[in-house]
Amino acid sequence: MDLQAILDGIGAEMAAAPERGRVADYIPELARVSVDHFGMAVCTADGQTFTAGEATTPFSIQSISKVFTLAIALGRLGDQLWGRVGREPSGLAFNSMIQLEHERGIPRNPFINAGAIVVTDAILAGHQPRELLGEILRFLREAAGDDDIHINRAVAASEQAHGHRNLALAHFMAAHGNLLHAPELTCGTYFHQCAIEMSALQLARAGRFLMGGADGGRILTPARRRRINALMMTCGHYDGSGEFAYRVGLPGKSGVGGGILAVAPGRASIAVWSPGLNAQGNSQLGTLAVERLTRATGWSVFG
Amino acid sequence: MDLQAILDGIGAEMAAAPERGRVADYIPELARVSVDHFGMAVCTADGQTFTAGEATTPFSIQSISKVFTLAIALGRLGDQLWGRVGREPSGLAFNSMIQLEHERGIPRNPFINAGAIVVTDAILAGHQPRELLGEILRFLREAAGDDDIHINRAVAASEQAHGHRNLALAHFMAAHGNLLHAPELTCGTYFHQCAIEMSALQLARAGRFLMGGADGGRILTPARRRRINALMMTCGHYDGSGEFAYRVGLPGKSGVGGGILAVAPGRASIAVWSPGLNAQGNSQLGTLAVERLTRATGWSVFG
Amino acid sequence: MDLQAILDGIGAEMAAAPERGRVADYIPELARVSVDHFGMAVCTADGQTFTAGEATTPFSIQSISKVFTLAIALGRLGDQLWGRVGREPSGLAFNSMIQLEHERGIPRNPFINAGAIVVTDAILAGHQPRELLGEILRFLREAAGDDDIHINRAVAASEQAHGHRNLALAHFMAAHGNLLHAPELTCGTYFHQCAIEMSALQLARAGRFLMGGADGGRILTPARRRRINALMMTCGHYDGSGEFAYRVGLPGKSGVGGGILAVAPGRASIAVWSPGLNAQGNSQLGTLAVERLTRATGWSVFG
Amino acid sequence: MDLQAILDGIGAEMAAAPERGRVADYIPELARVSVDHFGMAVCTADGQTFTAGEATTPFSIQSISKVFTLAIALGRLGDQLWGRVGREPSGLAFNSMIQLEHERGIPRNPFINAGAIVVTDAILAGHQPRELLGEILRFLREAAGDDDIHINRAVAASEQAHGHRNLALAHFMAAHGNLLHAPELTCGTYFHQCAIEMSALQLARAGRFLMGGADGGRILTPARRRRINALMMTCGHYDGSGEFAYRVGLPGKSGVGGGILAVAPGRASIAVWSPGLNAQGNSQLGTLAVERLTRATGWSVFG
Repeated sequence: MDLQAILDGIGAEMAAAPERGRVADYIPELARVSVDHFGMAVCTADGQTFTAGEATTPFSIQSISKVFTLAIALGRLGDQLWGRVGREPSGLAFNSMIQLEHERGIPRNPFINAGAIVVTDAILAGHQPRELLGEILRFLREAAGDDDIHINRAVAASEQAHGHRNLALAHFMAAHGNLLHAPELTCGTYFHQCAIEMSALQLARAGRFLMGGADGGRILTPARRRRINALMMTCGHYDGSGEFAYRVGLPGKSGVGGGILAVAPGRASIAVWSPGLNAQGNSQLGTLAVERLTRATGWSVFG
Repeated sequence: MDLQAILDGIGAEMAAAPERGRVADYIPELARVSVDHFGMAVCTADGQTFTAGEATTPFSIQSISKVFTLAIALGRLGDQLWGRVGREPSGLAFNSMIQLEHERGIPRNPFINAGAIVVTDAILAGHQPRELLGEILRFLREAAGDDDIHINRAVAASEQAHGHRNLALAHFMAAHGNLLHAPELTCGTYFHQCAIEMSALQLARAGRFLMGGADGGRILTPARRRRINALMMTCGHYDGSGEFAYRVGLPGKSGVGGGILAVAPGRASIAVWSPGLNAQGNSQLGTLAVERLTRATGWSVFG
Repeated sequence: MDLQAILDGIGAEMAAAPERGRVADYIPELARVSVDHFGMAVCTADGQTFTAGEATTPFSIQSISKVFTLAIALGRLGDQLWGRVGREPSGLAFNSMIQLEHERGIPRNPFINAGAIVVTDAILAGHQPRELLGEILRFLREAAGDDDIHINRAVAASEQAHGHRNLALAHFMAAHGNLLHAPELTCGTYFHQCAIEMSALQLARAGRFLMGGADGGRILTPARRRRINALMMTCGHYDGSGEFAYRVGLPGKSGVGGGILAVAPGRASIAVWSPGLNAQGNSQLGTLAVERLTRATGWSVFG
Repeated sequence: MDLQAILDGIGAEMAAAPERGRVADYIPELARVSVDHFGMAVCTADGQTFTAGEATTPFSIQSISKVFTLAIALGRLGDQLWGRVGREPSGLAFNSMIQLEHERGIPRNPFINAGAIVVTDAILAGHQPRELLGEILRFLREAAGDDDIHINRAVAASEQAHGHRNLALAHFMAAHGNLLHAPELTCGTYFHQCAIEMSALQLARAGRFLMGGADGGRILTPARRRRINALMMTCGHYDGSGEFAYRVGLPGKSGVGGGILAVAPGRASIAVWSPGLNAQGNSQLGTLAVERLTRATGWSVFG
């Protein structure tokens, strides 16, 4: 299998794709990014790396950061975390508040915003936001083997300025006793973690611990790795998670900046970036690119 | 790997398990089944079969029938089916009606009751219920290589007598123009398909077409097979789908009769039966048994 | 106060009104009625009657029938009825199913469809639909002092043919044990009661027992009369009940046929008909006409 | 009619009532109030005043303050206010968030918390909270003819400390662009307005402008007065509004401190206080006392 040829083909197809989706527009920093970008990187279990397009251009990883904070939280708290957040897909977007009300402030999974805020709150654990953000960056830099990973302060400030919906979720959970810190503190940290910038290459490298293999167990036990993959499969693409599983057949996590991290267990860590989003808020071309990749490689976990 | 030894160990553990869940009690025919039963069967890709416990005792497959009607529907209608039913997990149980209202009568996926009723309605297609039920039985008998598969008429009659919730769903979809036949006709067919009885051995054999391999393509194209597996992964266990993916790591479909059909793509088709259900309505020991199996075999699709 | 002059003025204004709303279109029998119709009748406590426009043209009373079945039910079952139906406004339309699920099949009030179906079911009480419909007609004829009140069979048949949503509600309540008869039987009765035709004059006369006064206690005790008025005030106009109370200031009940029955306690029984509906499904000109009447007469119960 | 004798009878009955409800316990300042208190005051249209029990003991008026801020808002903004808040009853408590989502941040009415926060935000209008609170107190003191009306700072601080749910609502509305000030600023003002203390006597006097009569038009036009009464009737008792209308038959507004302000249009302004709440969060004995009063006086607006 010539992976580079496959990636070249995907890169060419995506460069010419007419339907590129729409960039997120809730903050100006994301709204002004062009839909023309496309970058992709694949790290295989045998240590090789393949790229296509703008694989080294940094972009805002946004919700993809939730995978890494979850890994930190499971490493630190273990299954105790599940007392504060569930493991089930969430259904319709407007149900998030009903659900929080119905289940007394326990978000359904760690990848919806409410759940990710709880995870950040759990690992904040009395420290200063600055300290936790430093730890998240160290985790990413070590996993990616690259120190050039940073937070975009302008994006973070803009998230904060437009963060009313997340603050509403945080206050709601605080009302149910499921927040340890002030909503502003936890959300402030969360807004900064979402504003981390990485390139597709950095992201694919940082995600290698999820595919298992030689050194997989260093960062996470195999059991926890499998479980994060399971959560990415069932909950990683918001209300398009079923669609991603159906089309792509891999665990994956998308971000509103247009990035997707996908995992072919035992085979590869895959990152792709294209800022235009589909109706479910997931990268239009990113999804298509990973679909093309799994079709060409047979990497779907579904046989 | 000595699969028989693994199954023997699981059988012994399940025979002694103190927490066996509670049998479904909405119809007397299911309520009177003892929680003591346990049976399991595994058909591997190389054609071998392994069993544990009461692997040849027939039980009510209930919602597991939805996998087979979906396979029939995809074979007959192809992607056209997706105009009438979605592919996303459904979230909280009480959301089903909101969701139908919100999305104008389109159920979220083919494995919730509303979605399965639509699938049955789609393949009923103007025929008599008797004809479609005959076709479903033929499909199962051929897939299992066993003609001794039947409908339990008493169970079907009891489903019908207690079928108000399903009839409500059907009428609701009819009000939105998403039902081709009278609700009583479609639901009547659906009640009978749920009342099919199979043993774990028959079920594991009937599910072989989902694992792929040598003759996998005869019944379903590989693409459709993968997609059914994806739907089983994200939606196969109602509001416990995330939990099953997290613990077991395989596509699976449960039935309220205590059965579970699980698929290890490229490796095995697995069926298990134990009538006691957990809080999410899935077989308590069945789930545990498949979890034990994937842990011992490393068959989780998540690496 | 010259009531006839007031009614003449209202009649003239309504004849010329440019915004007449849209007729209900879910059944052809209602869809083909012209929006040009307008009729109004007022029966005062001193026994006088005033009319404007087409006050003697029969129209489909639809949900206004719910007031009369509730009166029959309270007369027969008393407060026992409240074990099966609540007394609170219902909020958003799409909440009706959530609410039924959340409150185990108990509809919020007798004026939403689910509640009215329960009321009809309660007074059906083992009788044949034909018998109950006869009793409802007798009640109306006696209250109106007019034997020329009938069911429009074509409308009833059409309601039945398009009754899936109501049948869904009925099956849902049956699933929760809150229906004594088969959903088809209760709904069949309900569809016929909604198809009763009356003129504004007949309706105003039939509603006299709700205003109290000399012979008010003959049909209902004053306490029950007040309570029906209270329910009409808080729940009588679906999701436009607050708006009707705000603009008109009287208890009232609307029907999708364009009729409204309103009550000025101690003063008058008012009926109005104009088939065009506003966005909330209540008569556009009917609401305006009663608003004009209460402004001119000072009959608002709110001072 | 001997009103003093009626009040004496009610006072005696309430003093002996065994079922007194439970005091609100979400803040310690309310939780420590005894359920034994009962006070009532009635101001009639002819200028007389009648009392029973502890009519001059101050209590926390809480949500009753919403009536007065609404009056201020209507006086200042007129119907323009209705662009930001609706006029319909709200249904189930857990629907508040769905509703805000569904209707893009527009609360259903000014008496649910979200709606009252919007009203406060509307009249804050760029001023300092201190200034608006001064205006609210001036309004109340003038309406009551009594300068001894104050904010309980300890209660306000406690509301603030336990205000996560209200802050969640405010952030949610801010996310939809329906808040002019920072959520903390608007909610801070709102928490203080809820912490105003008044006695039943002061409250009945302050509510006289709602009954109309001689000087009714000085504070509010008759049309606006009627409309506030209509809103109190349909929305004044949360999810117990239908029940209050049904039992009492008067417009009224309750507060979680155990107070109720009720209006008999053209006849009387009524205030009652007993801290024990019923299941809907309204004063158990307060409701009963007003029910007794309307039964004895025939003041129900429903005849």
